[in-house]
Parts: sequence; structure tokens; C-alpha cells
Amino acid sequence: MTDTPETGSDQEPRRGMSRRALLTGGAAGAGIGAILGLGSAAGFTALRPNPGSAVPSDDGSIRSAGAGGDLPGFGGEALPCHGAHQAGITTPSTAHARYVAYRLRPEVDADGVRRLFRILTEDIEGLASGAAPLADPEPELAARPSRLSVTVGVGAGLVDRVDPSRRPEWLKPLPAFAEDRLDDRYGDGDLLILLQADDPLPLAHAARMIHRDLTGFAEHHWTQQGFRQARGSEADGTTMRNLMGQVDGTVNPHPDEEDFDPLVWIGADGGWMSGGTALVLRRIRMELDTWDQIDRPGREITIGRTLDDGAPLTGGDEHTPIDFEATTPLGLKVIPMAAHARRAHSTDPDERIFRRAVNYDDGTEAGLLFACYQRDPYRQFVPIQQRLDEMDMLNEWVTHTGSAVFAMLPGFAAGETLGASLTG
Amino acid sequence: MTDTPETGSDQEPRRGMSRRALLTGGAAGAGIGAILGLGSAAGFTALRPNPGSAVPSDDGSIRSAGAGGDLPGFGGEALPCHGAHQAGITTPSTAHARYVAYRLRPEVDADGVRRLFRILTEDIEGLASGAAPLADPEPELAARPSRLSVTVGVGAGLVDRVDPSRRPEWLKPLPAFAEDRLDDRYGDGDLLILLQADDPLPLAHAARMIHRDLTGFAEHHWTQQGFRQARGSEADGTTMRNLMGQVDGTVNPHPDEEDFDPLVWIGADGGWMSGGTALVLRRIRMELDTWDQIDRPGREITIGRTLDDGAPLTGGDEHTPIDFEATTPLGLKVIPMAAHARRAHSTDPDERIFRRAVNYDDGTEAGLLFACYQRDPYRQFVPIQQRLDEMDMLNEWVTHTGSAVFAMLPGFAAGETLGASLTG
Ligand code: HEM
Ligand code: HEM
Repeated sequence: MTDTPETGSDQEPRRGMSRRALLTGGAAGAGIGAILGLGSAAGFTALRPNPGSAVPSDDGSIRSAGAGGDLPGFGGEALPCHGAHQAGITTPSTAHARYVAYRLRPEVDADGVRRLFRILTEDIEGLASGAAPLADPEPELAARPSRLSVTVGVGAGLVDRVDPSRRPEWLKPLPAFAEDRLDDRYGDGDLLILLQADDPLPLAHAARMIHRDLTGFAEHHWTQQGFRQARGSEADGTTMRNLMGQVDGTVNPHPDEEDFDPLVWIGADGGWMSGGTALVLRRIRMELDTWDQIDRPGREITIGRTLDDGAPLTGGDEHTPIDFEATTPLGLKVIPMAAHARRAHSTDPDERIFRRAVNYDDGTEAGLLFACYQRDPYRQFVPIQQRLDEMDMLNEWVTHTGSAVFAMLPGFAAGETLGASLTG
Repeated sequence: MTDTPETGSDQEPRRGMSRRALLTGGAAGAGIGAILGLGSAAGFTALRPNPGSAVPSDDGSIRSAGAGGDLPGFGGEALPCHGAHQAGITTPSTAHARYVAYRLRPEVDADGVRRLFRILTEDIEGLASGAAPLADPEPELAARPSRLSVTVGVGAGLVDRVDPSRRPEWLKPLPAFAEDRLDDRYGDGDLLILLQADDPLPLAHAARMIHRDLTGFAEHHWTQQGFRQARGSEADGTTMRNLMGQVDGTVNPHPDEEDFDPLVWIGADGGWMSGGTALVLRRIRMELDTWDQIDRPGREITIGRTLDDGAPLTGGDEHTPIDFEATTPLGLKVIPMAAHARRAHSTDPDERIFRRAVNYDDGTEAGLLFACYQRDPYRQFVPIQQRLDEMDMLNEWVTHTGSAVFAMLPGFAAGETLGASLTG
């Protein structure tokens, strides 16, 4: 037994009768006319036979999976949410991403977490498929998911509610870096909901449905929204550009490569996290006004790559390996010792990370929501970031203002519950 | 003569040598190595012959108009910015919109406004075409405009700097409405830059380029960002859905209709505003948590249309006219007296407005950035809003929290300057 609010019970309908109807003394069948005190407006009950149901009219054409797929456009494209790993990590990058962090309410215990995961599982299945979750009041906003994925991560606080002994060693705030200027507003949380889609409308709707279902369990901590180039604005698979104008994401382990899995996915020795991965999310502000004042060659050597097409300054095209040994006629390194690509480059093949960033620009501040996935942040992200923190020409124009680590849950099959390996 | 800062002078290069280079004692040719004190990193001068130029290397393939058009995808699509009217008002709605309001610096006089308009004209021509404006340090972010438009409006404060006697009667804060809960943060400004595009990346870049060029003239007042369904997610021309799930924008004057021009465009009697229009922008928060608690028929009668496809509750499809006279078997009106579509509907054909809204959702608040264009807000928007304010079932779930009016400048031809009719 638990004291989690009954919103969370999956024995009962998750959303009961309209709270508004209750407040105004109406039964479940209370019409809006009575609610608003507009007697003359209450003609609708004669038009619609079942006004009392809080569940949308069961319009099969909308609620059946993939209904949106019959219409033209990519809106109907649905990503499978089932598998060994959660969707949204190695699935193709989408145009929009939203990270939403929550803090668990104090009364949520292991049983509460279990129920929370069950509700999230249903929501994700409904939202990703376009079928809309149970009792979604706006199924039309869910019907065209546009490759929507919902990826769930947990923080130390959540694992502790279940069993502190199961907390992975790395699931804690990252060590402080000298150049950090962290804002607590974007710090660690107990639960992360990462939403990605090519269309901001189903994404906003999905975020709200999940938010509503989490209300009994958790409080909103922060939201960070980001974007890449729009779907269809350019050829699929083009590497994104960040707001400094750079081609960003070129050198990155690829899911098809043999060495990807051991870098990113936690293995069988990872216990309940086996099949999951560790996310590091850093909010990095860009000082674009001063960046613009640097001449173009200066901006190019800051990274070690051209702005035109992201090719190494040592020649070739975007995907030509950088020649870190090449020297100028004066005998200096072509890629400066403090260039970002050199400092970030790992000679240790086990130290690599899988990056998946998006741009952000809220009208007053712009930058990168830097995200990377790895098996162990302390063996992968941290040594790289230590090097960058110590010396990186880019530091003159970028400032880390947010930092969070989440354990991204293993995937789940149809019929299974997300996070079941943790909660049993 | 004027005391506007020299950034604004169009006699001189608009952006001179790197301020950073000046600060560090370098001449225009100062390399980044010297700037960062990284002597060993300064090898780049040998690679790039002209490191001192603040203007990007003249890569014709990027800077020539429409360069992005050769690549696959809609990114290369450029909207003409020249014409009798500014782009962005009747041109097709795009997926993303950003409204940015500025306040003029105290020292900007009529001459300053003239120079500001000249700079904006150049920026708009460069950004809309994809050719990138003069000295854009990231021409790659401008190269694929994705139907970018930049539309400029002015507030009373700006007209007063030129000649208070030329201020249109309607260019002032709207009258207070009883249900308003206005936040000053989203109030009137002196200058409005409206950016719209199908891709958030060129939009963000354009906003920043313009912001940078306005710095000498104006201070940022507010930014409001919104979205519709993504380009390509559904058939072109589908009416948008708002975050309440409604099909929103069905009954709207169409630019091809004969009566459109006199409703929207200010005529020859409008003096310097002839060819322009008045924008009313209202930030309207939605109370989605309580909205969701209303049953579906209740939500449908609030508007008078179905949620499925936006058809009137009196039958037909989305574009069937509403039958406001139809009654239920009980003799009540099918479309309630307080339904939004009834209250908003104008029987006076001259009272109509041209709506062009976008959704907003910043992670903590969601709603509609309601925008409408008309010749005279006091004869068109105000009477409609007065009716809604007085009685509209929708009011239970929507709250106006921002209000602004701008005079959207007439269009300009190639070789002309935006706003020349005002500044001479
Ligand atoms: C706003 C901050 C940052 C910007 C603008 C940025 C930009 C870039 C760019 C343009 C490249 C070259 C193209 C590519 O291979 O993707 C690059 C490479 C890379 N960056 Fe960053 N980066 C940032 C922060 C970081 C951080 C925080 C890390 C990890 C701690 C990181 C790790 C890497 C790695 C591993 C590479 C590939 C290096 C190689 O060639 O092996 N970056 N970054
Ligand atoms: C968040 C606030 C609002 C929402 C959600 C909303 C929603 C809607 C919807 C769903 C319709 C029916 C479909 C259509 O014809 O577009 C509609 C119609 C309309 N609305 Fe709104 N609206 C809002 C605010 C306003 C405001 C502030 C005004 C003007 C003062 C306005 C003026 C109109 C007009 C003129 C119509 C067409 C009425 C007719 O059938 O003749 N709306 N609105």
C-alpha cells in the first residue's frame, strides 16, 4: 500500500468525472450550460447523446494507431517505442526536442514509482503510435506524431525511493568544472521526460498529456527546448548546424558501428540498467555578439574545421579525418593545440561519447543543449570535459550554465512496463 | 545631423574592426592566437591570407541569392520581400513565428529612424533572399531561408520621433477590457520585428542579425515565439490546430477575395500608411488543465464547431457556413448564444479582421499568440473583442495577458527603402 494520490491508481479510471462538474454540484452528466450558468446555452445535450463521459467520443478512425498516416505529409510517421532500448536515443534526430525534469512528491514510494512507470508506459505507447493515450481529451493533436519519441530517464532521487543500493555509482551530480557557471534552475532532477518530434504541435501536446498524468506523482522542475533544422528543409542526414554557424556532430560513434554498443549501452553486468544508458545534459550559452567579432579564419581555427562545410582545416570534406599532425610552412600545427576538435578528440577509444545536441534560443539567450550518451559518464564525458575546461579556444564564447545526469531506462517490449527491471 | 551612435551610419562600414581586437591592442589583422594569448596556436595566418577582414570570405556560392535553392528540401525557398505590401502578412503561414518588440533609444531622432529603416531594408533583402546581409558572419545560417519573411511594424513612439502629427489615430494602447489580465512585459513597443519561416534555424539567425544591427538604435523589449504544425507534416493549406485541439482559422477573409483589400490594407487616404495595415497582437493564455475536464460535447459547444474536423455543430464540413438560426428539438439554439463563433461572428461586413495566430508553449505556459490585421482596430478588432469580453464561453479557459498594436509599414520595391513614406 502507498499514499500516492489516487490519480496514480491503475485499478480505477485514471481521470474521473470533471472536477469542475463536481465543484458546481453537477453529476458526471453536468452540461457546460449549467457550469457556466448559461441556462439558454445548454442545448447541446440534445445533440450529443453522451455528454457525461470525460473520455472523448470513441472515434475509431482517430484513436486507432497510425490513423494520421493516411493523410499526406510526414505527420503520420510513427516510431516504434518498443525494443531493447528506448526510442529517442539512436533513432534519427528530429527537428524539435524538449527536456522536462520533475521532482518526485515526498509521498511517492517504490509502489508509487511502479505505478508511475505503468502510466508512462501507456502514455508513451499511445502517444508514439498516434493512437492517443487513454482519455486523451485532444486525440487529434496526438494523431500525427511526426516521429514522436518519449524517452524516460531517472535521477538518484527516484532510484533511492525504490532501493538506494541499486543506484549506479555515476548517478550523481557531475564534478564541478572551473569554467562552469551553473544555474540551479537547470540542475539534476528525479525524473526526465525527453520528447522529440519533427512537429512542435504533437510534441507540445504529448508533453502536456504526460505532465497531467504525472501531476499526482511529481512536480515540474525545469523545461529546456531546442531545435535543429526543420524536417524537409534539407536532405535527410545532413549534419546539423549550431547557432555559431558550425557543422556540429560530424565525428560521432554511429549506431551501426561495431564498437557503438559497448560505448553507449549498459551491458549485462549493469543489473537493472542493462540496455539503458547514461545521459549527460549540459546547457551551454553562446556569447554570439563577441563571437561575431572574430574574423572567419579565427572562428575556423577555434574548432579546427571550416565554417563552409565543416571539413578539417587540414583538407578534404566533412568526413575526412582530421590530420592532427599537419604543420604549417612555419612549423606550427595547422589544428592549434587549443582547438576544440583537438581537445575534445579522444585517443582512448573507450573514452568516446555519443553526442546528440540541439540549439536553443529563447529570445534572450541562445546556445546549445549539449546531450551525450555513454555507458559511464565518469570514464567518458568527464575526462573530455576536463580537457575542454582546462583549455579550449571555444571557452571564450561558451559558458556551461546547466548540468544534469540521468539514467535512461532500458527499453521495453509490448506487454512489458518501462522501468520494470528497477521496480520489479 | 544626429547623435545616433555610429553603428547606425550607412556612410561608414556598419561593423568595423573586431572590438575584441581593439581591446587587446591588435589591429584589424590581429589573429585569434594573440587575442587568446595562445602564441603557438597562431598558425592560421599562413593558411588564410586575409584574417583581418570582419566580412566573411567572399564565397560567391553562398552569398549569391538563392544559393541554398540548389540543395534538396524546401530550405532554399525564398519569398520575395518586395511589393506593394510587406511579406509575412498575406504570404502563406509558416511553421514558426517570432515577434520581437524594441524600444528606441532616447537619442534616436527622425534622421536616426531613417537610417534604421535603411539598415533594416538591407537586412531584410539579404535575409529573405538567402544571400545573407552585408557582413553576416554566418552566411551559412542565412543561405536556406525556408520562406523566411521579416515584417516591420512601428509604434506611436517611433512615429512621434519623426512627426507626432503623422501618428494614426488608432496607434495607441487598446482600450482596457474587463477580462484582461495584462502583463506589461508584453505591452506596446516602438518597433516590431516579426520573423516567420518554416525552419527555426534561419529564423533564429535572422532575428539575431537584425538584433545586432538594431543595437545602436533600440533596446530589446520582449520576444514572443510561436508555432503551427511543421511544414510537410500534413497537406499544404490545412487549417492549423491550436493547443485546445480546435481547428482555428476557418472563417477568415481570404487575400484573393474582392473585399479583402479594403478590410486589411490601408488605402490611398491613409497617407504614409497607404499599403500598410494595423496589427493587433494579443497573448492569450489557455487554462488547459481545466479545459480538459470538460466533456467533449461541452468543449465543442464552447466554439460551436466539432473537434474532429472543425465543422459547424449545425452540420457539413469545415467550410460549410454555420447556421446560427438552427434550433434543437427543445427549441434552443444549436450554436449557443455564448458560443465563441457566434460572439466573434460579425454581421457587419466591414467589422471583419484577418486572423493569423500561432500557438505558444514555453514549458510553463501555453496559449495562442492571437494576431489580426485590419485597416482600423477601433472599427474592426475592438467591437469584436468587446463582445467576447462581455460574453464568450471560451473566457472560462482563456486569459488575455499581453496586448500590443503596431502600424505595419507599407511594402517597398527593389531600390526603395522600407518606411520611406514616413521618413521621407
Ligand atoms: C556550445 C558548446 C560546443 C560547441 C559549439 C561545440 C562544437 C563542436 C564542433 C563544431 C565540432 C566539430 C564537428 C564535429 O565533429 O562535431 C565539435 C567536435 C566535438 N566536440 Fe564539441 N562543441 C561544444 C561542446 C562540447 C562538449 C561540452 C563536449 C564534451 C565534453 C564536446 C565534445 C566534442 C567531441 C568529442 C567532438 C569530436 C572531436 C573529434 O574530432 O574527435 N563538445 N564540437
Ligand atoms: C485563445 C483564444 C481564442 C481561441 C482558442 C479561438 C478559437 C477560435 C475557433 C476554434 C474558431 C472557429 C474556427 C474559425 O473560424 O477559425 C474561432 C473563430 C473566430 N474567432 Fe476566435 N479564438 C480565440 C480568440 C479570438 C479573439 C481574441 C478574437 C477577436 C477579437 C477572435 C475572433 C474570431 C473570429 C472573428 C472567428 C470567426 C467567427 C465566424 O464564424 O464568423 N477569436 N476562434
